[in-house]
Amino acid sequence: MADPQLKVLGVCGSLRKKSFNMAALRAAGELLPAGMALTIARIDDLPMFNQDVLDAGIPEPVRRLRSELAQADGLLIASPEYNFSLTPALKNAIDWASRPPDQPFQDKPVAIFSASLGPLGGARVQYDLRRILTQLWGHVMPRPEVFIGMAPGKFDADGRLTDETTRKFLTDLLAGFRDWIVRMRKP
Amino acid sequence: MADPQLKVLGVCGSLRKKSFNMAALRAAGELLPAGMALTIARIDDLPMFNQDVLDAGIPEPVRRLRSELAQADGLLIASPEYNFSLTPALKNAIDWASRPPDQPFQDKPVAIFSASLGPLGGARVQYDLRRILTQLWGHVMPRPEVFIGMAPGKFDADGRLTDETTRKFLTDLLAGFRDWIVRMRKP
Amino acid sequence: MADPQLKVLGVCGSLRKKSFNMAALRAAGELLPAGMALTIARIDDLPMFNQDVLDAGIPEPVRRLRSELAQADGLLIASPEYNFSLTPALKNAIDWASRPPDQPFQDKPVAIFSASLGPLGGARVQYDLRRILTQLWGHVMPRPEVFIGMAPGKFDADGRLTDETTRKFLTDLLAGFRDWIVRMRKP
Amino acid sequence: MADPQLKVLGVCGSLRKKSFNMAALRAAGELLPAGMALTIARIDDLPMFNQDVLDAGIPEPVRRLRSELAQADGLLIASPEYNFSLTPALKNAIDWASRPPDQPFQDKPVAIFSASLGPLGGARVQYDLRRILTQLWGHVMPRPEVFIGMAPGKFDADGRLTDETTRKFLTDLLAGFRDWIVRMRKP
Repeated sequence: MADPQLKVLGVCGSLRKKSFNMAALRAAGELLPAGMALTIARIDDLPMFNQDVLDAGIPEPVRRLRSELAQADGLLIASPEYNFSLTPALKNAIDWASRPPDQPFQDKPVAIFSASLGPLGGARVQYDLRRILTQLWGHVMPRPEVFIGMAPGKFDADGRLTDETTRKFLTDLLAGFRDWIVRMRKP
Repeated sequence: MADPQLKVLGVCGSLRKKSFNMAALRAAGELLPAGMALTIARIDDLPMFNQDVLDAGIPEPVRRLRSELAQADGLLIASPEYNFSLTPALKNAIDWASRPPDQPFQDKPVAIFSASLGPLGGARVQYDLRRILTQLWGHVMPRPEVFIGMAPGKFDADGRLTDETTRKFLTDLLAGFRDWIVRMRKP
Repeated sequence: MADPQLKVLGVCGSLRKKSFNMAALRAAGELLPAGMALTIARIDDLPMFNQDVLDAGIPEPVRRLRSELAQADGLLIASPEYNFSLTPALKNAIDWASRPPDQPFQDKPVAIFSASLGPLGGARVQYDLRRILTQLWGHVMPRPEVFIGMAPGKFDADGRLTDETTRKFLTDLLAGFRDWIVRMRKP
Repeated sequence: MADPQLKVLGVCGSLRKKSFNMAALRAAGELLPAGMALTIARIDDLPMFNQDVLDAGIPEPVRRLRSELAQADGLLIASPEYNFSLTPALKNAIDWASRPPDQPFQDKPVAIFSASLGPLGGARVQYDLRRILTQLWGHVMPRPEVFIGMAPGKFDADGRLTDETTRKFLTDLLAGFRDWIVRMRKP
């Protein structure tokens, strides 16, 4: 028998309702190869990380995120770039999730892409994110690199990804990610 | 007459009540050379950055922080390192403060130090922070670099900095910062 | 009287004879504002850095480069990106020049641009270069950022920069650099 | 039968004859677990990278290095840090080796450590190196991180690693590397 269904958890670094990264993440859900399923995690209800809060007990939204990460076969992150690095919401989610005793990024296959209003497509956030997750012993897929620049012209008014080239890039990314997950997940 | 009093705004990247970085920032307030005064900004009441929130009107705590930054002659940041980079609270403060129409980091002299529980003292957060603030056209003082490693042994039970070597390092940092501010602030 | 002539030293990170970065550096020489003069340094005759070689005596090409740097009012670097970072020739020049007893990057105003065959224009080499030179206490001008992507279509067969938009970008960079030098050089 | 002998290629980023990194690399050769063998590559006879040179034909030392890399099951890099990043000799070796048509870092398991005269042990060179090799689709082992600070006190006059703690760190690194190679090399 083939691999059972691979569970992919999607995380979006923007909290904006009409976020192009969230729209692209939803598009990714439709472009998955056979044998994969995407669930998108909420991170907007996590409190700002504060060790005092953690010491008083793991907040429920953090517990939920950790559990979703632990059960996922792979993590798919879509994020804009703020000031040349991660959004605070995304860094916050990573910092909450990675605190002892759990460290759910350990041996987790990860794929990354980014959408941006401007032409560069968020190249710098991807490098910072790769560095951070690699140091947490996640397995970040190096290629293909997908940068969705000039995002406003590539989605329709309902947030559907209409640009065929971008759909092809995402399809290739996800096909590569399936192989990467099979190869890299915890033995 | 000499320079009027130089106003330094302190920002701490940790929200923990007994934060060693906050304790060190308070110590810095006592070790300032003549002609400088330190005020410590609050960042714990900023909401998580979300463009939708900003579009609905600048939140009051953000307005306060921007105003404090605009009036400061220099910015002094003390921050721990979370997962090899900035804390979400610090990144959040920078991202809120730097949105148009204001960009208060422009031409702002900045000094950085970091305290940590372990031996490395937060070297990596400093480099990410330097890169981010430099790209916002802040003037980040390159040296001396101050890393307060093994922090728990250097403060007393009331959070007072008792380690003489560290006090000396901070004193030198602040003396250098006065010269840096005089030289680098907006002409 | 106005400032005397400002001496700018140009360094190209590529050793290739038909390097687009060298061609752009020569174009910069023609686009300088009044009151500035550009000399381009050789770095192709530096040996590979080796402390044993230095211990035996500073090689003549290193001595020459250090002297040129010491006399320059500003440093203008044009470099391609190799494998997401500096070219070995450029890193080699920086490492040779920065060894004790001299450290000619101290307080030196620096401007950077990059040309590349592909569309990104060398964004990553610029960030690594900024980080390295800033830590050497050079004053790297943060903006404007100039990335000359798709370089082959912007120069003629003789290596002359023919693209008007790029000429304008370089002109703006150099005008900004003059102000930056006046403001930032050693007091 | 167990895995056949795993071939590890060692590369040292320093060209200095009495390099502590080279000394540590030789020590690593003695501390390998059963089933691994180390060969140390020469990189001191590579010319400085220049595309014109490559266009005239792959230099013999480059051909040799590429062939050694292609045959190795894993790559072990020991390097000092120069000016907060890679040594020019190491960047040069990577740039020569990674040019088309070959790209021998693709799917190559890599382990890294660094020795330094000072206390930090070369933390920053490791991060730049991880980033560069990861983008070349190498599989860089994230942990354990080994930084040999204060190197002069840890080797005897003949360059033998005498510090027992460091020997233990290297032994653990190499044991982890064996498992990493088995898991990560090209399927």
